[in-house]
Amino acid sequence: MKKYEEKSITSTPVYDGKVISLRIDEVTLPNGKTSKRELIKHPGAVAIIPITATGKIVFVEQYRKALERSLVETPAGKLEPGESPEITARRELEEETGYGCEQLTYIQSFATSPGFADEIIHMYVAEGLYKIENSASLDEDEFVEIIEATIEEAELMMKNGQIFDAKTAYSVLWVKEYLQKR
Amino acid sequence: MKKYEEKSITSTPVYDGKVISLRIDEVTLPNGKTSKRELIKHPGAVAIIPITATGKIVFVEQYRKALERSLVETPAGKLEPGESPEITARRELEEETGYGCEQLTYIQSFATSPGFADEIIHMYVAEGLYKIENSASLDEDEFVEIIEATIEEAELMMKNGQIFDAKTAYSVLWVKEYLQKR
Repeated sequence: MKKYEEKSITSTPVYDGKVISLRIDEVTLPNGKTSKRELIKHPGAVAIIPITATGKIVFVEQYRKALERSLVETPAGKLEPGESPEITARRELEEETGYGCEQLTYIQSFATSPGFADEIIHMYVAEGLYKIENSASLDEDEFVEIIEATIEEAELMMKNGQIFDAKTAYSVLWVKEYLQKR
Repeated sequence: MKKYEEKSITSTPVYDGKVISLRIDEVTLPNGKTSKRELIKHPGAVAIIPITATGKIVFVEQYRKALERSLVETPAGKLEPGESPEITARRELEEETGYGCEQLTYIQSFATSPGFADEIIHMYVAEGLYKIENSASLDEDEFVEIIEATIEEAELMMKNGQIFDAKTAYSVLWVKEYLQKR
């Protein structure tokens, strides 16, 4: 869909970093005027909703420097260049939780901040979880703690703000409906 | 919560723009090592789920340059300096849809991209909608089209990718549960 398309007249790179890059585009608007758009490029990511045999959800708690606080989130991680989202999902599940899974099912993809960033998260549900001996370890600048919670506990963590990001809030609502149907 | 806190040793401003700013912090990790964090500052935003008397949801379709496509989203907009989220929500509802509302109820706040940005969206549900004559108009670089959809139509738009951002995906699941309870 290209309704109201904004075509770039100029595109100015500002920063090219480890995770994100930033450029400023001057664009033509549908009314013929021009405007500036500040645009973040991100490699994309996966998020996984791991559900245990007893119907608990496996979350990870980690510090998020951008918010200066810790958050309880679904396991997630950036796509490596050329890596398919399913491979990333299996890798991140193992690295962050120590779990492998028998079934990994794609749910949905979505953009996180369409107003300024191209980040897309691919969501999966992981079932048939099993512990991996000597599982692959986290990146050396990652520190996470595993939290296994029932859906009621997860809803409570949403209310008290421990769960505080969009992908995880979405995950909690999604799992609730999924477990009711199962 | 400050578990695994990362303290900044240095903080280097890279870009200060109209909507976002970017800085690079060098941080100390829990293991004593250091790492770099690329951090986007954003003023925060509101999103509104307007529900009509017949239980339809009011969405807006607009072009998102970051993704180079149009998306169907809940009405939303950035906080102006010093503006309370509730005022922003009423303003954006009027500007983007032409509706005022008798009840505006706070639902939830969440971070959109905690890995690199501090953007927080405050979600509201708007009910008791009424058309405002000569309603406040959009910013001069905004072009949106209104789409009123049932929950079934919204779920279809999620499946076919017209709805493709996290706040709107969350909104659709939230409304579904809300309308079932009502």
